[in-house]
Amino acid sequence: MDTGSLTQFLTFLDLAAAAVFAISGALVASRKEMDIVGFLWLGVITGVGGGTVRDVLLDVPVFWIKDEAPLLICIACAVLAYFTAHKFQSRYRLVLWLDAAGLAIVTVAGASKGLDITGSPVIAVVTGILTGTMGGIIRDTLGQEPSVILRREIYVTASLAGAICYVVLTGLELDQVSASVISFGLVFVVRGLAITKGLALPVYKSRPGRDVDQG
Amino acid sequence: MDTGSLTQFLTFLDLAAAAVFAISGALVASRKEMDIVGFLWLGVITGVGGGTVRDVLLDVPVFWIKDEAPLLICIACAVLAYFTAHKFQSRYRLVLWLDAAGLAIVTVAGASKGLDITGSPVIAVVTGILTGTMGGIIRDTLGQEPSVILRREIYVTASLAGAICYVVLTGLELDQVSASVISFGLVFVVRGLAITKGLALPVYKSRPGRDVDQG
Amino acid sequence: MDTGSLTQFLTFLDLAAAAVFAISGALVASRKEMDIVGFLWLGVITGVGGGTVRDVLLDVPVFWIKDEAPLLICIACAVLAYFTAHKFQSRYRLVLWLDAAGLAIVTVAGASKGLDITGSPVIAVVTGILTGTMGGIIRDTLGQEPSVILRREIYVTASLAGAICYVVLTGLELDQVSASVISFGLVFVVRGLAITKGLALPVYKSRPGRDVDQG
Repeated sequence: MDTGSLTQFLTFLDLAAAAVFAISGALVASRKEMDIVGFLWLGVITGVGGGTVRDVLLDVPVFWIKDEAPLLICIACAVLAYFTAHKFQSRYRLVLWLDAAGLAIVTVAGASKGLDITGSPVIAVVTGILTGTMGGIIRDTLGQEPSVILRREIYVTASLAGAICYVVLTGLELDQVSASVISFGLVFVVRGLAITKGLALPVYKSRPGRDVDQG
Repeated sequence: MDTGSLTQFLTFLDLAAAAVFAISGALVASRKEMDIVGFLWLGVITGVGGGTVRDVLLDVPVFWIKDEAPLLICIACAVLAYFTAHKFQSRYRLVLWLDAAGLAIVTVAGASKGLDITGSPVIAVVTGILTGTMGGIIRDTLGQEPSVILRREIYVTASLAGAICYVVLTGLELDQVSASVISFGLVFVVRGLAITKGLALPVYKSRPGRDVDQG
Repeated sequence: MDTGSLTQFLTFLDLAAAAVFAISGALVASRKEMDIVGFLWLGVITGVGGGTVRDVLLDVPVFWIKDEAPLLICIACAVLAYFTAHKFQSRYRLVLWLDAAGLAIVTVAGASKGLDITGSPVIAVVTGILTGTMGGIIRDTLGQEPSVILRREIYVTASLAGAICYVVLTGLELDQVSASVISFGLVFVVRGLAITKGLALPVYKSRPGRDVDQG
């Protein structure tokens, strides 16, 4: 795959992630009964947050500073959410599903950009997971909501699976678009099973008499 | 306006923002009954936080790494707050007012530096708002206080108004100092009305039977 | 001391900090009953968090993007914590002690790298403290635990003492390794006394009738 198409594909991923995370951020604003500007603010920060952290870590120009398209998309999505959020029976479930899509996209974009720049599969997996989970962290911290990361069902694991999948597939010389699509699907399906079926890994259990909050 | 004077003016804004946000951070330390070093720590982080995020996003050297003056100002302000905080009847209201001044200054400084470096009005507005609101976010998150951003009265909107005002006025060829002063005034007055009169935009209202916390 | 050995020494500090902070992050994951991937995730972020912030502020390449060794160490330590955490009577006290060691190492590494790059003792002290305290902030914020920084006993003060000690000793022409070891010891002993003896500076006391939460 030539460099031009790859750059285009990464730009597309950033726009798609901005859209879904912006809506999820705006929906949290709706749950907090913020005003329209609050929707825009939380939408934009959540929409571009993960990719921003990725670019700062990799020391490349922040994607929305170079090009205003992601900002315009976040703004449009936040406005859309403001006028349509009441049509959804459960906005919280919608946040979970959009978050799942965002997690999948940013994981792939993070792993892909990390691999391109460092060439190390280990670092690529870590940049994929860290930046993939960052959108949800920023949204939940700023909105003072319970963290989606600390829920019992699988979350980080879905991102880990996708990042490893991406690194392995490109290592096997699969082209980057196919590897991205498959990895995206893997994250989304795993996280989707977690949301619908409560799929979870065994959690760490404190032994009897050794309470978790025991000081 | 020549580049030398503009640089000087931006440096002045950074120092002024450091001063007011440092005092607001130190006052939160007083509400949490921290020790003198806690005052210094929260004062310095809050004082330089917004400008630091701005410089990292714009990929320019962080202002207080180049020049220690902002740090010395934060330290002096935190010490001052330690010895005078008890004289104020309501330290929380003082935090709100200092925060309003800081919001106004950093919004202008963020929009101005963003416009200089990217030339895009949209990006300049976003850097203005994001970095303007960052000082309060950092202070409230580290101090584990209720977020000033999530209060019902206008907050982000004041910053948005000021950032747009700055971009429009400089677009109309007004000099940057005048545009800054007018935009600063606009943010401060709007936020001041929010604090004193409870000025608010209509908030997003959940429809009956569609509770905000409905999962 | 020649540049090669200094670079090696700083690399060693980053690895040591990654190890202790990774275990402390993984132990917080155990207290939150997360799964093994949650241990890895919180271990890695906490392990490399402070050094990452330092490198971004100083505008040098992020240490774990250049070299995957710190990541491998974090992963190993998180796995170790997953299988051994139940053997400790009080995991929370262990978090406190590991955090103390991490605070000491990152303070020294932050002050040292800050002094090397900027040459300013004031900036070096601030980078030492800010990045030293960052690991604990990241861990406690992501794990939604009470902040270790807001506890009554000395915390930031230990870091401040160590950062000043380092700057003074190198100013007196002591070699950097000796200065680091002495400064590390100072932070660890002071923070250790805070943990074991409740050592504290006088805290800011609200005057009677001026309640801290008075709005």
